[in-house]
Amino acid sequence: MNKAYRTSITTHVNGRLYVYGYDLVDLAQETSFAKSIYLILKGNMPDKNSEKMINSMLTIAIDHGVEPPSTVAARNVYSGGSPLQAAVAAGILALGEYHGGAIETAMENFKKYLNLGTKVMLNDFNQSGKRIAGYGHKIYETDPRTQKLVSLAKKFGFLGKYVKFALSVEDVLSKGGKKLPLNIDGIFAALLLEMGFNPKVGKGFFIIARTPGLVAHIIEESLREKPFRRLTEKDVEYDGPRPRK
Amino acid sequence: MNKAYRTSITTHVNGRLYVYGYDLVDLAQETSFAKSIYLILKGNMPDKNSEKMINSMLTIAIDHGVEPPSTVAARNVYSGGSPLQAAVAAGILALGEYHGGAIETAMENFKKYLNLGTKVMLNDFNQSGKRIAGYGHKIYETDPRTQKLVSLAKKFGFLGKYVKFALSVEDVLSKGGKKLPLNIDGIFAALLLEMGFNPKVGKGFFIIARTPGLVAHIIEESLREKPFRRLTEKDVEYDGPRPRK
Amino acid sequence: MNKAYRTSITTHVNGRLYVYGYDLVDLAQETSFAKSIYLILKGNMPDKNSEKMINSMLTIAIDHGVEPPSTVAARNVYSGGSPLQAAVAAGILALGEYHGGAIETAMENFKKYLNLGTKVMLNDFNQSGKRIAGYGHKIYETDPRTQKLVSLAKKFGFLGKYVKFALSVEDVLSKGGKKLPLNIDGIFAALLLEMGFNPKVGKGFFIIARTPGLVAHIIEESLREKPFRRLTEKDVEYDGPRPRK
Amino acid sequence: MNKAYRTSITTHVNGRLYVYGYDLVDLAQETSFAKSIYLILKGNMPDKNSEKMINSMLTIAIDHGVEPPSTVAARNVYSGGSPLQAAVAAGILALGEYHGGAIETAMENFKKYLNLGTKVMLNDFNQSGKRIAGYGHKIYETDPRTQKLVSLAKKFGFLGKYVKFALSVEDVLSKGGKKLPLNIDGIFAALLLEMGFNPKVGKGFFIIARTPGLVAHIIEESLREKPFRRLTEKDVEYDGPRPRK
Repeated sequence: MNKAYRTSITTHVNGRLYVYGYDLVDLAQETSFAKSIYLILKGNMPDKNSEKMINSMLTIAIDHGVEPPSTVAARNVYSGGSPLQAAVAAGILALGEYHGGAIETAMENFKKYLNLGTKVMLNDFNQSGKRIAGYGHKIYETDPRTQKLVSLAKKFGFLGKYVKFALSVEDVLSKGGKKLPLNIDGIFAALLLEMGFNPKVGKGFFIIARTPGLVAHIIEESLREKPFRRLTEKDVEYDGPRPRK
Repeated sequence: MNKAYRTSITTHVNGRLYVYGYDLVDLAQETSFAKSIYLILKGNMPDKNSEKMINSMLTIAIDHGVEPPSTVAARNVYSGGSPLQAAVAAGILALGEYHGGAIETAMENFKKYLNLGTKVMLNDFNQSGKRIAGYGHKIYETDPRTQKLVSLAKKFGFLGKYVKFALSVEDVLSKGGKKLPLNIDGIFAALLLEMGFNPKVGKGFFIIARTPGLVAHIIEESLREKPFRRLTEKDVEYDGPRPRK
Repeated sequence: MNKAYRTSITTHVNGRLYVYGYDLVDLAQETSFAKSIYLILKGNMPDKNSEKMINSMLTIAIDHGVEPPSTVAARNVYSGGSPLQAAVAAGILALGEYHGGAIETAMENFKKYLNLGTKVMLNDFNQSGKRIAGYGHKIYETDPRTQKLVSLAKKFGFLGKYVKFALSVEDVLSKGGKKLPLNIDGIFAALLLEMGFNPKVGKGFFIIARTPGLVAHIIEESLREKPFRRLTEKDVEYDGPRPRK
Repeated sequence: MNKAYRTSITTHVNGRLYVYGYDLVDLAQETSFAKSIYLILKGNMPDKNSEKMINSMLTIAIDHGVEPPSTVAARNVYSGGSPLQAAVAAGILALGEYHGGAIETAMENFKKYLNLGTKVMLNDFNQSGKRIAGYGHKIYETDPRTQKLVSLAKKFGFLGKYVKFALSVEDVLSKGGKKLPLNIDGIFAALLLEMGFNPKVGKGFFIIARTPGLVAHIIEESLREKPFRRLTEKDVEYDGPRPRK
């Protein structure tokens, strides 16, 4: 008979915990958190350069200020009087298709079009009218985070076929005139593919990176703000029906 | 051997679904949603007046505009590109201690102090320095929703000991000068006790009432707004350390 | 200058609250919760038959026992020591594509293929290989909830073009032999279209209906179970790497 | 006029992002993720030993298998057809008072009783009848994770007053006979105090540590399991009313 849950990640043997076969307690002595994240998402240990690359990626996405919808959602939930875990959860819920969620889609596109080439890719997107995941940014014309990650990729040996392909798409996209830069979602996608991650990992990787930032904002909310945020007249425009019977 | 889950709410018998013993399909023919809500929260059918009272309470709390933190959280989560259920969940997460959550606490207080009297109650709260759940409102000096519910309670036969006690606490609280009105949490608490609900039901009742409002706001967000809300400079003040090495 | 939030749902005028122009406090006196739900999702008042239809639909979906993933998620979240609103949110988060989420898709399909006909519809789905939203059930060969709603639709005047189309699709689908019944998602979709709702409302309607059931299960968990559910050896099969260095 | 949001964490200057004054893009070149987590939670950079201690703590709590309620909630939410971020959020929602949430409480207790001593502390808890946060475990009689962290604390210079106090409480608690070991929540609490963290950080630190484990389980669910988990008869016992009219 089959059991209800199957897993290949973690097991208990004689009161000890093993993650993909590694004793977690032994591991804790000699590892970095980044290394453990790599292990649990991929099932094997990173080499030194992968660990460095991962550390840089996770750091660069750790926060983006109060402004994005995830931080606003997290602070408002805390403000209603719910505990920290509820506010973190709300922040993570905002990490959807337009907020970190493009990484998975970009990974799938890069895998699909790597051999077909940029011409076929852009043609397909022109025909479907869809936006190409991983390009463009509301604020940045050139995303300094992307530039740094590309230079680190070179240093650590990850400027391979996927990063090159991602950059060649950026070149073609920007020929028209308006700059459509490879954004942080796009470079994350290319780098995760270089390291052999499954596209399914894409969004999860961003969530892991951003969670400490959300936690920090919620703690700040708890220490500095009064309960119950409320929008005021200057924030809200009503354009519905007038009072009626 | 004990099974992992026990329930006395709903069961399947011969391919039919029974809620507290009532065939749900039969029930659907002759019930109102309010009646079914009462049944599932209490385990028995309401009489006609309880059904009316519940209908009024659920309606009066169905929405409070874009302004509260629950609506803001819900809209921001949707804005990040997550599906409707994620946005509803975020809205509900904001319904904490300061946002509907006082109902349960107020129910417990009213039960505890009904026989001890207002004097003991206010004395205890003065000593502990805690706010009394169910009194005071940021906007209203007299909450018109409370007044309506009190008049309906009279009409439907629920102006009993708990509502009277809740009103007598309001009287004493307002003697000093500054009005501390019985708010919607407080009158909900008193009315739910009149109908014999467990205090645990308090917060859940408010969540049920407010969910349609949250859904409506999220659908409006989906039909009228562009993705990815972002606060701007005029919303955010930074007072942390200056750039450093 | 544009304000950050726009809404046509609810506004405050002179300290009173108006939903689509109706004074919420006046409304509370004479309405049913189902009527208010209709109003807030659609922007106008239901007639008597729509109100009855809505009451039946909301009731019939109010709970489906402990078994579905939404209830399990809700109970486990409460079991970790988080408050009721967090557990309700977790339950709602499980209401995804396979759990109530088919209503919106089915609504869009019915709208699209109503004039094209069942033949074109089934042809398209055969070619794409996708499942047709709103048909088939893991447990029921004929869903008694669907049958009841169809008979009520007849009684209340909603056996119109969408319900007829939905039933004709069921007929064609079941010709092959294996019964693929119109399920509760499918009949909800057809009925919501009969009443003129936007497909976006589909999933939200189901969430509203199911929330009281989730609340009831969480209160039961709080009153009857010890904290911290934990799966045991008999529930979990490990098939990952053996202990290694 | 005050702006709606204030923060001292992250700001944008000339298109670059600064976390507590450190340019995030520069930081990404030379940091570890653990270091960045320390920075964003505390406002300053860790020394080498703090960074090592944090790496060990975050690793040791990265996962605890399928068994805990957080993993079950996360997998069930995904199983309903919601996206990864919704499932991660549900897992985090389960990290309540009984599931990581004791760290904050234990930090507050240790701070309060450090100077009053174990005797006063145990006396107070005996009188109130409350459980002492951070002690006892359902599975372990001696938690090997705690033992490892204590030995690492010694190595890295964190076997200070808080860890010693936490261990002395364990000694007294275990005198009676039944072992009540310092558990992972308790040692986390003592170590975070040694490093000077605010108690508010406690639960957030555990959430950050566990999020990668939750992500890994959800990806496994997505790659290996069919949608819509459903409990069966062998899991559920019904003890409510029999069918009735």
